[in-house]
Amino acid sequence: MEEQHLESSDFLKDIVIGMSDGLTVPFALAAGLSGAVTQTSIITTAGIAEIVAGSIAMGLGGYLAGQTEVEHYESELKREFEEVERVPEREKEEVREVFADYGLDLATQNIIVEALAKDKKKWVDFMMKFELGLEKPDINRARNSALTIGVSYIVGGCIPLLPYFFVENSLDGLKLSAMITLLALFIFGYFKSKVTGQNPVGGALKVMTIGTAAAAAAFFVAKLF
Amino acid sequence: MEEQHLESSDFLKDIVIGMSDGLTVPFALAAGLSGAVTQTSIITTAGIAEIVAGSIAMGLGGYLAGQTEVEHYESELKREFEEVERVPEREKEEVREVFADYGLDLATQNIIVEALAKDKKKWVDFMMKFELGLEKPDINRARNSALTIGVSYIVGGCIPLLPYFFVENSLDGLKLSAMITLLALFIFGYFKSKVTGQNPVGGALKVMTIGTAAAAAAFFVAKLF
Repeated sequence: MEEQHLESSDFLKDIVIGMSDGLTVPFALAAGLSGAVTQTSIITTAGIAEIVAGSIAMGLGGYLAGQTEVEHYESELKREFEEVERVPEREKEEVREVFADYGLDLATQNIIVEALAKDKKKWVDFMMKFELGLEKPDINRARNSALTIGVSYIVGGCIPLLPYFFVENSLDGLKLSAMITLLALFIFGYFKSKVTGQNPVGGALKVMTIGTAAAAAAFFVAKLF
Repeated sequence: MEEQHLESSDFLKDIVIGMSDGLTVPFALAAGLSGAVTQTSIITTAGIAEIVAGSIAMGLGGYLAGQTEVEHYESELKREFEEVERVPEREKEEVREVFADYGLDLATQNIIVEALAKDKKKWVDFMMKFELGLEKPDINRARNSALTIGVSYIVGGCIPLLPYFFVENSLDGLKLSAMITLLALFIFGYFKSKVTGQNPVGGALKVMTIGTAAAAAAFFVAKLF
């Protein structure tokens, strides 16, 4: 048997993030409004405004968060380089602690420390990853990721909204919207779980639960007002 | 000088996640609707539906994602234990590769491998963290995190919506909403950046940019329909 650790690619992960929110929130918003107003034109306007707002908030928000992460990584990297120069003994002690936690004895710890200390760049890389748990972030990746998430949100958000364009009465729209959205959530949840190595039907039901709970709650709360 | 790596606590991070979306999306949705309808009552209904939908999607979505992560960790853990039993030589080779990347010579690699191999539990822990990059997730943490994010979304979302309850005309509501929301985004961005060790004013401006861009886009797109 091949050793194989299933890992969804970053691209697929971004599609999942954008689409799961895109299918859920506009669906629930439209459902909520269907409980309170009868005209579908208001629902489509609100839905479109939500999709625009949500995709920008998720996409631009994700991009700026990625930018902050790059800055954070660089300032920590600079700090580690300084510390390795200024207080090498303390940094060596930190390496020893990492391996002491894994039950390695002091002699082995010292061998590792001396081997790492030979190359400052690699030593700092090691500290970044194993002491601070930071991986080098990529700003191009942040930009692509933001775009993928934003577009997936728009695509996902259009599905629940579509029926409201074709019917006059909001409750008719809601019935159609619920049918196609629950189907879309099931299909989406199924493939998402397959890609991430989870149980497909269980995953599909989870995704449907979120959508249903959000839509039902929005429907009843909006009806109250 | 003390060595100090600024780290926001998980609790603060969750508040930031929930509140930044909560301040942005309902603000932009209300702005979008203000461009298309004159009655504030529709805007408050839509806003409330959005806050309910968004907080459930973020909170419940976050909880179920946390649950999936726990399952994923456990299945990978089981697999690593099996591999350490079944193909120990291949697993040893993987440990060597980790350290070869840091420039350690073969003799040092072998010392580490033999030391780790003495304790299978620690060896597997090491593989989980350093080969697969997986940390043990905590399902209680997922539940608390979901709750914090959901509540922060509600709190953040109520701020931009508040003015629409007190005025009749939607454009008057939008003016007041923009003022208090931009102020709230500035204050929020300022403290968020302070906590995460970023430049506070720069961070505050970034957060304001997202909110403004989302609201402006939603306003103009909704006006078209």
